[in-house]
Amino acid sequence: METYGFLGLGIMGSAMAKNLIKAGFKVKVWNRSPDKCEELAALGAEVAATAAEVASSCTITIAMLADPAAAYEVCFGPQGVLEGVGAGRGYVDMSTVDAGTAKEIAAAVTAKGGRFLEAPVSGSKKPAEDGTLIILAAGDRGLFDQTMPLFEKMGKKSLFLGEVGHGAEMKLIVNMVMGGMMTIFCEGMALADKAGLDSADLLDVLDSGALANPMFKLKGGQMTGGNFAPAFPLKHMQKDMRLAVALGDALGQPLFTAAAANENFKRAKAAGFADEDFCAVYKAIKS
Amino acid sequence: METYGFLGLGIMGSAMAKNLIKAGFKVKVWNRSPDKCEELAALGAEVAATAAEVASSCTITIAMLADPAAAYEVCFGPQGVLEGVGAGRGYVDMSTVDAGTAKEIAAAVTAKGGRFLEAPVSGSKKPAEDGTLIILAAGDRGLFDQTMPLFEKMGKKSLFLGEVGHGAEMKLIVNMVMGGMMTIFCEGMALADKAGLDSADLLDVLDSGALANPMFKLKGGQMTGGNFAPAFPLKHMQKDMRLAVALGDALGQPLFTAAAANENFKRAKAAGFADEDFCAVYKAIKS
Amino acid sequence: METYGFLGLGIMGSAMAKNLIKAGFKVKVWNRSPDKCEELAALGAEVAATAAEVASSCTITIAMLADPAAAYEVCFGPQGVLEGVGAGRGYVDMSTVDAGTAKEIAAAVTAKGGRFLEAPVSGSKKPAEDGTLIILAAGDRGLFDQTMPLFEKMGKKSLFLGEVGHGAEMKLIVNMVMGGMMTIFCEGMALADKAGLDSADLLDVLDSGALANPMFKLKGGQMTGGNFAPAFPLKHMQKDMRLAVALGDALGQPLFTAAAANENFKRAKAAGFADEDFCAVYKAIKS
Amino acid sequence: METYGFLGLGIMGSAMAKNLIKAGFKVKVWNRSPDKCEELAALGAEVAATAAEVASSCTITIAMLADPAAAYEVCFGPQGVLEGVGAGRGYVDMSTVDAGTAKEIAAAVTAKGGRFLEAPVSGSKKPAEDGTLIILAAGDRGLFDQTMPLFEKMGKKSLFLGEVGHGAEMKLIVNMVMGGMMTIFCEGMALADKAGLDSADLLDVLDSGALANPMFKLKGGQMTGGNFAPAFPLKHMQKDMRLAVALGDALGQPLFTAAAANENFKRAKAAGFADEDFCAVYKAIKS
Repeated sequence: METYGFLGLGIMGSAMAKNLIKAGFKVKVWNRSPDKCEELAALGAEVAATAAEVASSCTITIAMLADPAAAYEVCFGPQGVLEGVGAGRGYVDMSTVDAGTAKEIAAAVTAKGGRFLEAPVSGSKKPAEDGTLIILAAGDRGLFDQTMPLFEKMGKKSLFLGEVGHGAEMKLIVNMVMGGMMTIFCEGMALADKAGLDSADLLDVLDSGALANPMFKLKGGQMTGGNFAPAFPLKHMQKDMRLAVALGDALGQPLFTAAAANENFKRAKAAGFADEDFCAVYKAIKS
Repeated sequence: METYGFLGLGIMGSAMAKNLIKAGFKVKVWNRSPDKCEELAALGAEVAATAAEVASSCTITIAMLADPAAAYEVCFGPQGVLEGVGAGRGYVDMSTVDAGTAKEIAAAVTAKGGRFLEAPVSGSKKPAEDGTLIILAAGDRGLFDQTMPLFEKMGKKSLFLGEVGHGAEMKLIVNMVMGGMMTIFCEGMALADKAGLDSADLLDVLDSGALANPMFKLKGGQMTGGNFAPAFPLKHMQKDMRLAVALGDALGQPLFTAAAANENFKRAKAAGFADEDFCAVYKAIKS
Repeated sequence: METYGFLGLGIMGSAMAKNLIKAGFKVKVWNRSPDKCEELAALGAEVAATAAEVASSCTITIAMLADPAAAYEVCFGPQGVLEGVGAGRGYVDMSTVDAGTAKEIAAAVTAKGGRFLEAPVSGSKKPAEDGTLIILAAGDRGLFDQTMPLFEKMGKKSLFLGEVGHGAEMKLIVNMVMGGMMTIFCEGMALADKAGLDSADLLDVLDSGALANPMFKLKGGQMTGGNFAPAFPLKHMQKDMRLAVALGDALGQPLFTAAAANENFKRAKAAGFADEDFCAVYKAIKS
Repeated sequence: METYGFLGLGIMGSAMAKNLIKAGFKVKVWNRSPDKCEELAALGAEVAATAAEVASSCTITIAMLADPAAAYEVCFGPQGVLEGVGAGRGYVDMSTVDAGTAKEIAAAVTAKGGRFLEAPVSGSKKPAEDGTLIILAAGDRGLFDQTMPLFEKMGKKSLFLGEVGHGAEMKLIVNMVMGGMMTIFCEGMALADKAGLDSADLLDVLDSGALANPMFKLKGGQMTGGNFAPAFPLKHMQKDMRLAVALGDALGQPLFTAAAANENFKRAKAAGFADEDFCAVYKAIKS
């Protein structure tokens, strides 16, 4: 029976690896802080000492790392993936990185004879636990097909988007739409409030028609309740808005709405809400 | 058995009146062009010669007229509602009018001893036919309660929003959120296209997560298929964006995202798409 | 020797009428509050009891009134201009009114056989005193030429802009450019401040190159000194921005920069700076 | 008599070096393409074979290079400034580079015992020829004072702005204000045109009041004449707007007007005007 590698056991990675084990896959894990491996080991995972060890011994190694810097380090650093990956071995990086970093890792892995797939996800802690992530894959099509049985346990939908970089770009665009929806929603909520309308009524109307979406429902309730505990921190959303606007810059696509939304998030950041949930932009828009 | 009045048998009004008749209510109808009354008469409706006749003989008279000018004329014009409405009689105007017009009509009706309820709806032809409109009522609370059995046959949800004007404002705010969602959505679609991503993939991703909403699903398909046949004409959406921005002006609420969205719709209008569906803003954003 | 009429002796009108008297013209004045006429009478002006009296006895009557409502009232009200103006008599309204009001007054005056010229000015108290206003005239070309000797004593430049309405529109557009220049200037000042640059250095650089203009020089000094005493109140600037954006709406001209500037002024108004100088938008942009 | 080094003889550098020679300074020049040195040699300049040779033999070496990449290469490349600069020798980089590159060069030069001054200029070909540039210096204060006699021949104003990076930031902020002034100006011009007003009248009014500035006068005439020959290419202006917006991002300063202006320039770039003058944004705004 095949063993699959899994690098990175943070909140997301840990939940995803557990879903693989629960589904009956054999998994060999590694994490920078080894103590995070214990919980997985208790569930039956094999534990490796280095990322290189995992990459050299598994046909497919999945990574879920905190940010582009961590993804870069785990690949290129000492005892990293590049030292282990060899002919035919596949590396599936599900971390959220920019298109440039994804392409750099892809080039290095394929230069070693390996195969590469970027596969960032849409969705955070809860979908990771529930196995309902949306997986935005791009790169080696064969590796995508081969990894599909695992994707099916981690996500509810997996798309193959073509060449490396497209996964990162798709994620950025989705987040840009999310950010713009959030600021127009907050402007509507603030305007209703100034007009003397009840927020609950606006939420009710929005939830009853063609605009109804889970985000308005969830965040709207939190906003009126004054709950801005971070599920997706505002500073990360603002960073994604900035990167999306920059992508429009590079590709010659004006983005007037996104640019205005970005400035709203910048204002919220400047007002001290960087580490709160991105729906805290409501407080800046209302003030 | 009580007879209810119904003024205005356009696309919306006709569908709504039919739902009342189908539900077993006795209805007396009037329309400016009398030929539109025939279909309703065939279903059992009584036909009146003037709006005044309806208003003077029914305890509750409902109106569904094309625009604020028509709503004004049917109320204040010769043989209009004001000439018929009297002590205790209720007038329920479901037309979409601005808060100012609604207040003017309310004042005139109550000066005659009548009761007034504004009740604009969210939703267009299909929900009118299906009886799934969202009814945004404000004004006389007793009249709202009394009309509820009829609202329940025309809509799936009816809210009472307080004083006259709140119905119009709520509808404007909802449309503002709709307009902003549309432009950020189109910016995302255009950006994906420039990045070489498949629109169908973006629609698929958006429809799978927290942003999923019926509008993206319906309009996204139309946009990629080049179908801009007007369900809600772009010029009306732009007018609503302008009015919402002006409401923000009057109430001291800055609306940066809405203002940017409004300019996008203005650009689309200037580019010749005024009479197409409001999702034709996509063509202006892409160009 | 010809006598010229002058209606409205507020801060602007009083200074303008004095310049006419100083230049040797015979002037007959009227003001709603008669006490304001005394100073002019002391300088040699004849004083009339009503606006109608002035309009019926002078070949050319000039008006400089506080706002569109006052301009309307002095024309259409009891003992107003319309009651006096007759065949061949000219009415030159230098008040700042919207194009619609200007056209209404023009139609009424010409229906009486009179001639009409709108002639709003660019410039406030100081240029009015110094006779250095910029006069934006439109309407009756012959009346413009005939009034030129008087314009030359009140302003340093007089333009004839064609049909009635063009004067109001030109003034609106100039104010829109002024508002946009102010917000980008404030954004630059705020950014320099956050970067640790000295405001005085930025002002010095701006004043030395192709962007140098009297407004940056004057307002920049006030802003850094915390002086926001109103020369042109922020709420009036915001109103003009709103009207300019609305003019773009009516004419099919998208105005993304102006719309963003307008929201900045709205935010400043909401923050409590409505009655301060329009450069107080700096405080809102910095916060 | 002291000899001063001068690296880079493009359009700007060549004109600046000539002004130094004309003023009687002894100058030793170097340029990547040696043929550009001939004209200067004919005026009496000494010609060096490498940048290192200049830096090692002159107490003060000035550089004026095309872009950050050239500035970096001339400093760090083979036979570059770093190989020549030594204890006490001063390096004055007048190229336009970002704050990051300026800091990197500063660190390398001072590590060698040298002194560093960044000194980007505001103004292009004509002011370079006329010796009327504005010099935005930052870094070593003593070196600034020592270079002042040369600055006085190249510019009409020289400011010392503090630590390295402030010169680059000041230039960016000035260009941001320039870009925003240009888009609000173009919106005003386009709106006047749609209103049936004569562009010449608007330019006349703007040039007569508190907004009068050399840029409106020069560019306004070009725009109405359809002359978009590049003095400052639109793509460079858009790049500076993007960098300024990014600086606001880094420093927590929202810039709504600048962001809208940036999108206008992006739209002009996408419409094919990247290599025309930045006032070609007028064509995009009008369309």
